[in-house]
Amino acid sequence: MTDKRAVFFVSDSTAITAETLGHSLMTQFAGQSFDYRTLRFIDSEEKACEARDRINAAHREQGLRPIIFSTLVVSAIHEIVASSEGLFIDFMDSFLSPLEEELGSRRVASVGHTHGVVTQEHYRHRMDAVNFALQNDDGGSIRQYERADLILVGVSRSGKTPTSVFLAIHYGVFVANYPLVDEELEESRLPADLKPWRDKLFGLTIQPERLQQIRQERSPESRYAALHQCQYEVRQVEALFRHNRIEYLDVTSKSIEEIATYILKATSLDHRRL
Amino acid sequence: MTDKRAVFFVSDSTAITAETLGHSLMTQFAGQSFDYRTLRFIDSEEKACEARDRINAAHREQGLRPIIFSTLVVSAIHEIVASSEGLFIDFMDSFLSPLEEELGSRRVASVGHTHGVVTQEHYRHRMDAVNFALQNDDGGSIRQYERADLILVGVSRSGKTPTSVFLAIHYGVFVANYPLVDEELEESRLPADLKPWRDKLFGLTIQPERLQQIRQERSPESRYAALHQCQYEVRQVEALFRHNRIEYLDVTSKSIEEIATYILKATSLDHRRL
Repeated sequence: MTDKRAVFFVSDSTAITAETLGHSLMTQFAGQSFDYRTLRFIDSEEKACEARDRINAAHREQGLRPIIFSTLVVSAIHEIVASSEGLFIDFMDSFLSPLEEELGSRRVASVGHTHGVVTQEHYRHRMDAVNFALQNDDGGSIRQYERADLILVGVSRSGKTPTSVFLAIHYGVFVANYPLVDEELEESRLPADLKPWRDKLFGLTIQPERLQQIRQERSPESRYAALHQCQYEVRQVEALFRHNRIEYLDVTSKSIEEIATYILKATSLDHRRL
Repeated sequence: MTDKRAVFFVSDSTAITAETLGHSLMTQFAGQSFDYRTLRFIDSEEKACEARDRINAAHREQGLRPIIFSTLVVSAIHEIVASSEGLFIDFMDSFLSPLEEELGSRRVASVGHTHGVVTQEHYRHRMDAVNFALQNDDGGSIRQYERADLILVGVSRSGKTPTSVFLAIHYGVFVANYPLVDEELEESRLPADLKPWRDKLFGLTIQPERLQQIRQERSPESRYAALHQCQYEVRQVEALFRHNRIEYLDVTSKSIEEIATYILKATSLDHRRL
């Protein structure tokens, strides 16, 4: 017996949609903690019965009614899972009826349909974007800045790489990144390689204390991780951003998602999506 | 005037949740095409009024009622956007009431709450996972396989890197990857570096024709991209997987999301999440 209520995400496909909205909803109930479980690729009646049995077992074990977030679309599968003892919350059906009415057409309702053939090209583009981000990471030898949609600049460990990769994988944006180092910071000048691309630049900054923490984990006791070095670099990089009129964001208390989508909104990239 | 109906994703935060479920719902209406627009960080009444005006303007321009997918939680903001001329579909409110009843507690209902302080550690872990994936990409000089949760193996261009990065950024899984090359394929033997970690290995395979396409884009007319070379490598790598009892997946017609979540399900990783 545990006192944590089970929360199930159930889907005939990846369950990412169910997980995303389900987690958003559960964070609205901050005081409690839950035991999250994902049942993916529930695409047959047999698997639906297994899912129902697992949900009912969790009910028995915990003595608390499980919560089920579902994106199941095929009725036969949906009905089996909905007949379990949990609170069944349906993310698809609730909205498909009003949408059908508004659009004047019927839903498709096939298993795993959320990734249609039409999106193959979309996925291909995103894989290219991920490869681009990795090849153009950290101001390395490959610098295909003419192909970049965006070039992130900032001091070392300010979150450029995770942000680049997130924008690539989620939004198919081609992002290069370039770490500004001592010589550039000292003179408040843009590296020559970046000058032609000022319209593509976006800066990241971070509080020196947080930067120190991150660098300490990587290189304890190094000059690189000393607080006064972090303070110096952050002061200089912000001066460089202002001097070159580069828009920038303080990432200190932000998640990767927040940083990435803030940049989409601040640049024109939100409007030219695939 | 355009004949594409506008679809708005509106959120007081990143809008990723609204985009994810909204896109899933719209793919159920495959015959029609839509003009997608995201209004992120709508966290004040002033911004809500701007959002409402943009929605109403889209209605006038297109002569079609826009569809609005919302994850707004603060009533004052929510009500302004809901008063627009579009079909307002509410992803939060619809579900919070039954959840409140089931959990016997009230929602929090503050702006941007879906990323609480409690998740800072979670994000830190995911950033570490992304850095790990990049450092341990492509069987490079850094091979921290003892720290890896999973090591993806497969021929060059079979999707190892995007899958690694996706698992890192979404699920905080530490994934290394290793490309199997000619000598290893020839003798159907595991590289010595991988032998101690067979329990962490997962294989990716792909149809030779698709592999050829992908390699052609990268290195046209090379030996590497010749169909017979791709056929040879795929045949050998699958033999190697079987011979060493490594579970594997054919990624040919799958999205990054599907590959990544299939692997979570097939391994024990789904059960040890943060």
